[in-house]
Amino acid sequence: MPVELNFDKGDGLLPAIIQDAKTGKVLMLGFMNKEALEQTLQTGKVHFYSRTRKKLWMKGETSGHVLEVLDIYIDCDADTLLIKVNPKGPVCHEGYLSCFYRTLRKDGELTIVEEKLFQPEEVYGKGA
Amino acid sequence: MPVELNFDKGDGLLPAIIQDAKTGKVLMLGFMNKEALEQTLQTGKVHFYSRTRKKLWMKGETSGHVLEVLDIYIDCDADTLLIKVNPKGPVCHEGYLSCFYRTLRKDGELTIVEEKLFQPEEVYGKGA
Repeated sequence: MPVELNFDKGDGLLPAIIQDAKTGKVLMLGFMNKEALEQTLQTGKVHFYSRTRKKLWMKGETSGHVLEVLDIYIDCDADTLLIKVNPKGPVCHEGYLSCFYRTLRKDGELTIVEEKLFQPEEVYGKGA
Repeated sequence: MPVELNFDKGDGLLPAIIQDAKTGKVLMLGFMNKEALEQTLQTGKVHFYSRTRKKLWMKGETSGHVLEVLDIYIDCDADTLLIKVNPKGPVCHEGYLSCFYRTLRKDGELTIVEEKLFQPEEVYGKGA
């Protein structure tokens, strides 16, 4: 593609921020390698590269909660993506609307600030 | 701090998404090491670790456009932060409100979608 994205700074990966286009809520962050970005552009559905499993995956491939791409933004340094999406269900594998369901206080304490929308084992199976 | 953040996955760094608390606009993404997060918590102003310059810095130390912290969220895997802020000026060193001032089309073409609010050399000096 004509634009030169800087994959080198992150060892071949770019962070991709996922934001709900309608509500403005930040839903999650994942990493993309070149292949994940190409798949995302081609299919219109968000794909990531998993740093833990070391493989490409489509968000929602198990749960059905895919992320439909509306707009992709790149930052000034061309090393971060912001993707506005139409989410087809709650995003977090823990059962919350977003992965950012906890706030961190100055003393390190966490508070859950979202409601649990589904039980992970019912969507992802017993291994979840 | 009591919460165990996973700094290992990113070689000692966590991505931190910066979102305007009032407008919901995603302004930028930076990386934090433990020290940057501690400084952020202690001062209430966003600090990052620069991967390029390999040093801690406070956003706005040159421009005055500091990011006042309102709330910090951590994600399900405890390896990403979302920080809601009150920004004291445009965030991008290129002179835009946010660093995500360009959209990426499927064919790789970029379109500028924000208005330039300042000339970088007037804020950062001739080296900008």
